[in-house]
Amino acid sequence: MTERLYLYDTTLRDGQQTQGVQFSTPEKVAIAEALDGLGIDYIEGGWPGANPTDSEFFEARPETRATFAAFGMTKRAGRSAANDEVLAAVMNAGTPAVCLVGKTHDFHVTTALGITLEENLENIRASVAHMVASGREALFDAEHFFDGYKANAPYALDCALAAYRAGARWVVLCDTNGGTLPGEIHDITRAVIEAGIPGDHIGIHTHNDTGNAVAGSLAAVDAGARQVQGTLNGLGERCGNANLVSLIPTLLLKEPYRSAYDIGVDRAALTSLTRVSRQLDDILNRVPVKSAPYVGASAFAHKAGLHASAILKDPTTYEHIDPALVGNARIVPMSNQAGQSNLRQRLVEAGIEVDRADPRLGEILEEVKRREDQGYAYDGAQASFELVARRMLGLMPAFFEVKRYRVTVERRKNKYDRMVSLSEAVVVVKIGGAKTLSVSESMDEIGADRGPVNALAKALGKDLGPYQDCIDDMRLVDFKVRITQGGTEAVTRVIIDSEDGEGRQWSTVGVSPNIVDASFESLLDAINWKLVRDGVAPA
Amino acid sequence: MTERLYLYDTTLRDGQQTQGVQFSTPEKVAIAEALDGLGIDYIEGGWPGANPTDSEFFEARPETRATFAAFGMTKRAGRSAANDEVLAAVMNAGTPAVCLVGKTHDFHVTTALGITLEENLENIRASVAHMVASGREALFDAEHFFDGYKANAPYALDCALAAYRAGARWVVLCDTNGGTLPGEIHDITRAVIEAGIPGDHIGIHTHNDTGNAVAGSLAAVDAGARQVQGTLNGLGERCGNANLVSLIPTLLLKEPYRSAYDIGVDRAALTSLTRVSRQLDDILNRVPVKSAPYVGASAFAHKAGLHASAILKDPTTYEHIDPALVGNARIVPMSNQAGQSNLRQRLVEAGIEVDRADPRLGEILEEVKRREDQGYAYDGAQASFELVARRMLGLMPAFFEVKRYRVTVERRKNKYDRMVSLSEAVVVVKIGGAKTLSVSESMDEIGADRGPVNALAKALGKDLGPYQDCIDDMRLVDFKVRITQGGTEAVTRVIIDSEDGEGRQWSTVGVSPNIVDASFESLLDAINWKLVRDGVAPA
Repeated sequence: MTERLYLYDTTLRDGQQTQGVQFSTPEKVAIAEALDGLGIDYIEGGWPGANPTDSEFFEARPETRATFAAFGMTKRAGRSAANDEVLAAVMNAGTPAVCLVGKTHDFHVTTALGITLEENLENIRASVAHMVASGREALFDAEHFFDGYKANAPYALDCALAAYRAGARWVVLCDTNGGTLPGEIHDITRAVIEAGIPGDHIGIHTHNDTGNAVAGSLAAVDAGARQVQGTLNGLGERCGNANLVSLIPTLLLKEPYRSAYDIGVDRAALTSLTRVSRQLDDILNRVPVKSAPYVGASAFAHKAGLHASAILKDPTTYEHIDPALVGNARIVPMSNQAGQSNLRQRLVEAGIEVDRADPRLGEILEEVKRREDQGYAYDGAQASFELVARRMLGLMPAFFEVKRYRVTVERRKNKYDRMVSLSEAVVVVKIGGAKTLSVSESMDEIGADRGPVNALAKALGKDLGPYQDCIDDMRLVDFKVRITQGGTEAVTRVIIDSEDGEGRQWSTVGVSPNIVDASFESLLDAINWKLVRDGVAPA
Repeated sequence: MTERLYLYDTTLRDGQQTQGVQFSTPEKVAIAEALDGLGIDYIEGGWPGANPTDSEFFEARPETRATFAAFGMTKRAGRSAANDEVLAAVMNAGTPAVCLVGKTHDFHVTTALGITLEENLENIRASVAHMVASGREALFDAEHFFDGYKANAPYALDCALAAYRAGARWVVLCDTNGGTLPGEIHDITRAVIEAGIPGDHIGIHTHNDTGNAVAGSLAAVDAGARQVQGTLNGLGERCGNANLVSLIPTLLLKEPYRSAYDIGVDRAALTSLTRVSRQLDDILNRVPVKSAPYVGASAFAHKAGLHASAILKDPTTYEHIDPALVGNARIVPMSNQAGQSNLRQRLVEAGIEVDRADPRLGEILEEVKRREDQGYAYDGAQASFELVARRMLGLMPAFFEVKRYRVTVERRKNKYDRMVSLSEAVVVVKIGGAKTLSVSESMDEIGADRGPVNALAKALGKDLGPYQDCIDDMRLVDFKVRITQGGTEAVTRVIIDSEDGEGRQWSTVGVSPNIVDASFESLLDAINWKLVRDGVAPA
């Protein structure tokens, strides 16, 4: 027999408290639809009246299976619930559920609000009762509940009970400042149940200020709470809220939760989890966190040589779940820690079969190590790794040779007396017996992107004779630079991400004390990889 | 009465298993020194013999108060401990402590190693005994211990006991695959103690695959373990290891740990925690995670209007600890009063006094915000920030004007038929009424460092007429490049660290779509800052 455990998402409200995050209404709609697709039970859409976009969203909110909630605050002292304009704005959002935050820590009542403890209790009672009388499902967010309980347990419990007795469907215990550890959350949640609020009316709302938001949520469930509040990717004020993207697979896949609870998200929806997480990063224009539990690009990446060889025998040796369950994938990257089995796996992915006993495997490994000592990094540059291996295996055609190049960056005033920059590149290439000379320029006024590397890429891609058809749809999508140590010298490492018309992406690396040379090397690898992968015949 | 709780750092070994992370020897030395400064008890330096940089580091390792450990594997079956070359390499690293990983999960013994369960027990016994007989402090990393215990508890316990009875100072329970939840970690750690290994001989090693690595470590301590293994910033294979940067302040500042345990890190060292965390990000050229517990730039940022106004009355209203305890700082929105008092403080540090009522304070805040939107970052570039403020306050002399510059990078064969690169820069500067034209070149053969930015720096510093004396002792010590978002465009941000003859260091920032322009802007700021700080009179 499983019990129902509810998930409540506050990405659109508490998640928007993240520094630098401000959702537009269409973005909020897209996120709400993604949450609904996952099977989240409640979606908190914002605080109507607190800012214009929140109010706008409630008019535009999509049809969902999930229950929509509007957020607000308990009424102020000295006026009735019906005459409080903050409550009225929340009511006017027209959502089936309403979540009201209120004080439960005596210090905040007297210091921040400046009212009596009894006035605060009355505000909670009257506000919740008003919502219930208006036919809304009422939630009470018990602000600072754990700190309040530690300071004055009877008063904190009185506040929670006041909301419950006034008809609140859920009393949500909030660790607003994020400093409460899981053990305390467990014990205090237990105490609330013992004080008379049943566990299936208790929710938990944690923050990650000690790195324990997920564990704190689980601890409250262990103690009996039956609603968990959190956000996608752990967005939220300061260090963020409990990360639903971490909690959902744990609740669905791991004991004791798997057998004990039924959550709205099912196994089929779970396979969209990685996509939903990346979609939020896309909306925020953030680089996805590689190390994110379950959904990060590194979450199933096996770098250690011993791990990689065991993974090839049986993935369960070093994986706690099958990555496909959450829509993620395994990665066996190349690095100087990797053994030969790791190497063979990488070659197979590149379409290169090498016998297990081939001595050249050891040579390739040595070459990769030697180059990593010089500053190359092949973890994130699989295409360049493939080219190194192909060269050593005699599988790399000589498509063309760069005889020389020159790039100039000039900054001066233009005819309108404004400072502008012009980058000009000349590249001389020999293909078969023929020599071609190409020139290209790149302007850098405000809004017109690019510098010397772009000029070189354009010159190089301008006339590669018989290869032109193949490379015409190539595009440079990202360019990462870092200064690193190569032997005893500081060198520049440049990683370039390229893309072609079919949406295929590949990454290449170049290293040199000179940033332009390093970039050029990385560019050359990008073109050579495309030619070899497309099976182009050398001229 | 407090009990001793030990911290064991594996940033240099397990941390290096992070995708894309490869430390150089000087970087390892810098990290070891930072760990030692914090007061970490053990520093695991790497796996000698597994790759060249790890072996090199043990020869270069600094003198530390912390105990150094080399990592390795228990001996293979069919040979004696004395004749096992993997063990020999670990021994030869010459560290006072040695940590050997070994199997404890029956499935791995038979599947991955392909030996009998008894052979594995004997490998553990003999390897640990060999280390102890050689006078080393021995640690046994019990790989897959929790999964092993769940599959075959008696065998997993036998493995742990074999190591303990052979003289291991610590038996470290490893959740290698990272899938074990804190509750299970607690119960299984308890069972190990009941089986006969005292808690003060038990360590815990967790991974963050469910987002619970920190909580799992605390659960093991609650059960009686007295050593915690982790890494700085939670680096490590897949989703990373337990984050010591989160654990240290929790253990030092929060109950029940604060009163119960004594850890090597004290309150004074704790104030360097934010700096140490950022230093690691600098070495990795990573953007620090803003939402990181305790040390993130957003960890004490108060965006919600209600929170921000309460914080001004009393910071404890929405902060779980005082940010100064961990060397971090509070952030309140720029627009409010506290933003201006922060700004005034920063200007005072630069020797600029501005009246509290001066309306230009608000204008400077706006300008900084506008520039940060374009991609500038002033957190790490105090010198450039000062120049912005000085310009708006009318305190910035016009020392010189750059009329134009040109830099050329040419790559071609030299007379010995080797590819070489030559960078040449021309800079035209107007000082007072006089115009000077300077040219400089920079060669890039193997071992001879530098490219276009170096050539520009040399040309610019070659003839600045009356300022030459002041800038002659300037030196470019570091150069960091990052592609970032400036408005809607990708731009390049270049941060340059400069130093002068007195050992004074300062940092400047430049932003442009063109990497050469961004570098040049940063260079100009560096020179201007030096001139204004030295009180040089404009020509």
